[in-house]
Amino acid sequence: MKDLAKLMGFSKDTKVVDATLRDGGLVNDFFFPEDFAQALYRANLKAGVDYMEMGYKASKDLFDTSKFGPLKFCEDDYIRSIVGDNMTDLKLAVMADVGRCNYKEDIRPKNESPIDMIRVATYVNTIPAAVDMIEDAANKGYETTCNIMAVSSGQQENHRVALEALCQTPVEVLYIVDSYGALYPEQICRVVDTFMDVCTKYGKKIGIHAHNNQQLAFANTIEAVGDGVSFLDATYAGMGRGAGNCSMELLLGMLRNPKYYQYPVIEFVEKHMNALKQQGVVWGYDLQYMMTGMLNQHPRTAIAFTKEGRDDYSEFYKEVVALD
Amino acid sequence: MKDLAKLMGFSKDTKVVDATLRDGGLVNDFFFPEDFAQALYRANLKAGVDYMEMGYKASKDLFDTSKFGPLKFCEDDYIRSIVGDNMTDLKLAVMADVGRCNYKEDIRPKNESPIDMIRVATYVNTIPAAVDMIEDAANKGYETTCNIMAVSSGQQENHRVALEALCQTPVEVLYIVDSYGALYPEQICRVVDTFMDVCTKYGKKIGIHAHNNQQLAFANTIEAVGDGVSFLDATYAGMGRGAGNCSMELLLGMLRNPKYYQYPVIEFVEKHMNALKQQGVVWGYDLQYMMTGMLNQHPRTAIAFTKEGRDDYSEFYKEVVALD
Repeated sequence: MKDLAKLMGFSKDTKVVDATLRDGGLVNDFFFPEDFAQALYRANLKAGVDYMEMGYKASKDLFDTSKFGPLKFCEDDYIRSIVGDNMTDLKLAVMADVGRCNYKEDIRPKNESPIDMIRVATYVNTIPAAVDMIEDAANKGYETTCNIMAVSSGQQENHRVALEALCQTPVEVLYIVDSYGALYPEQICRVVDTFMDVCTKYGKKIGIHAHNNQQLAFANTIEAVGDGVSFLDATYAGMGRGAGNCSMELLLGMLRNPKYYQYPVIEFVEKHMNALKQQGVVWGYDLQYMMTGMLNQHPRTAIAFTKEGRDDYSEFYKEVVALD
Repeated sequence: MKDLAKLMGFSKDTKVVDATLRDGGLVNDFFFPEDFAQALYRANLKAGVDYMEMGYKASKDLFDTSKFGPLKFCEDDYIRSIVGDNMTDLKLAVMADVGRCNYKEDIRPKNESPIDMIRVATYVNTIPAAVDMIEDAANKGYETTCNIMAVSSGQQENHRVALEALCQTPVEVLYIVDSYGALYPEQICRVVDTFMDVCTKYGKKIGIHAHNNQQLAFANTIEAVGDGVSFLDATYAGMGRGAGNCSMELLLGMLRNPKYYQYPVIEFVEKHMNALKQQGVVWGYDLQYMMTGMLNQHPRTAIAFTKEGRDDYSEFYKEVVALD
């Protein structure tokens, strides 16, 4: 049983990261309505959110710029068109995927950019590339995180080796990413334990990015908070790939730190997120995501099921069980 | 951290209770499509569910029979029209609310009824009436539970006194009911602790009935399982009042006992639950329910908001904060 004092109080180390534009952008290929990002920026400022992830730094060699909105690429000038010089306490982040980012060229030195933090996303088998990206970004003056994706599919011992290697770099935060939405709170607790074991030796912080395949994104984030995780990803109305993420409105309602305000999030969801849904943008818990989550599979088949407008869950169940 | 063996294994004491008709009936006033209850009965049989709650034993003096479907009243003959003599391992339950049931007349002796279990629902301030109902039902030959509603609004010491009184009766199961969907898993853990403290002295079992106001119905049920709770309520597609309940498909996906099968639930949801939704029956997580849950309020204002088709969450927030 967790310490009662912790439930009533709050940790000063907690940082809330709004990943709506980045993970939500995976749902609509980053084609957000014109005023969306600016309004979200203002809502985050009012809500006391600590970091706002603006999108990806994706390679233009690999991704056709005509097929994605500009936040897939997050050019500095485009970010400035949204946030100006961002002379605020809200820090800006972008995600850079291993193997999908020309980081040496496309990430400019920090003193030329409005971005504060580079989040390097990697699978556990591409750690050397992630290390190079982290060092590149740190040398350019950025804060850095390393987001280890699909933690549910790796062996605990592999995580330990990966973390030891990453902890030799200047990276500040090591992220647990439950990409498949496969983990139960008790399992999150054990993954955190492994991360904590290595990261505390090196003074690194730990983050959590949860998916809602089994309606556990918020619960897993709460579990992680109780276990000492400090960087918490959330998205407005849970918008994110497939079943989506931990909802910002739920997270700010739970955190006891009086610096956070839930009301601006409610206003934003009312005005902007429901409008997206009415335009036919689809995300959130549904049975196809539960199935891939339970089976610890990548959600791509479930996303295709959704896009095709299918509702034959029982046929889909047979298809994904056959993949297992 | 919970015992790893427990996560891999399963408890033989676990009983899964399908509350779809009863809690779901609160959404559509028990007007289910004609073949719904029978198909649900067959799905529960295939899925290995232990108990099926058929509805309420509501007083016809208090409730107009023309305004509700027959499962609001669960007359024995009507139940027989659905399940015949139910010569199966699936037991049947009905709920009887303190102050809303003419139990002395309307609950016939067990040997005249297809029902196996009477679930007495009470607030913590009406325990003497609940005790009388439990004794009446037990004397007539039924299994009994006592479902203590709105546990989030009571003081821990009141629960202890109530439980001591209830444990003097023949009741078999004491239920934690988070009617407001207000509790976080860490709080569930503490409530279970209080229940366990009293109930184990008397050899009584503990149940959990969760609501999904904060997307925690499943997580809170998992938490309770890990803490030793054995009777688990769930509903197909989470159908239940307001934000709904713990989803049967999620619960059976998590329980490791090979007696449970998730596939019949998936088939039923595909065929019957989505049809209900398409007919305009509305339940499930939304911001209005999150707000009443967070504020530890009865969901009646949020249900009215939903019925009126409102989507001005921010106005509603002001209204419910003012009630606090």
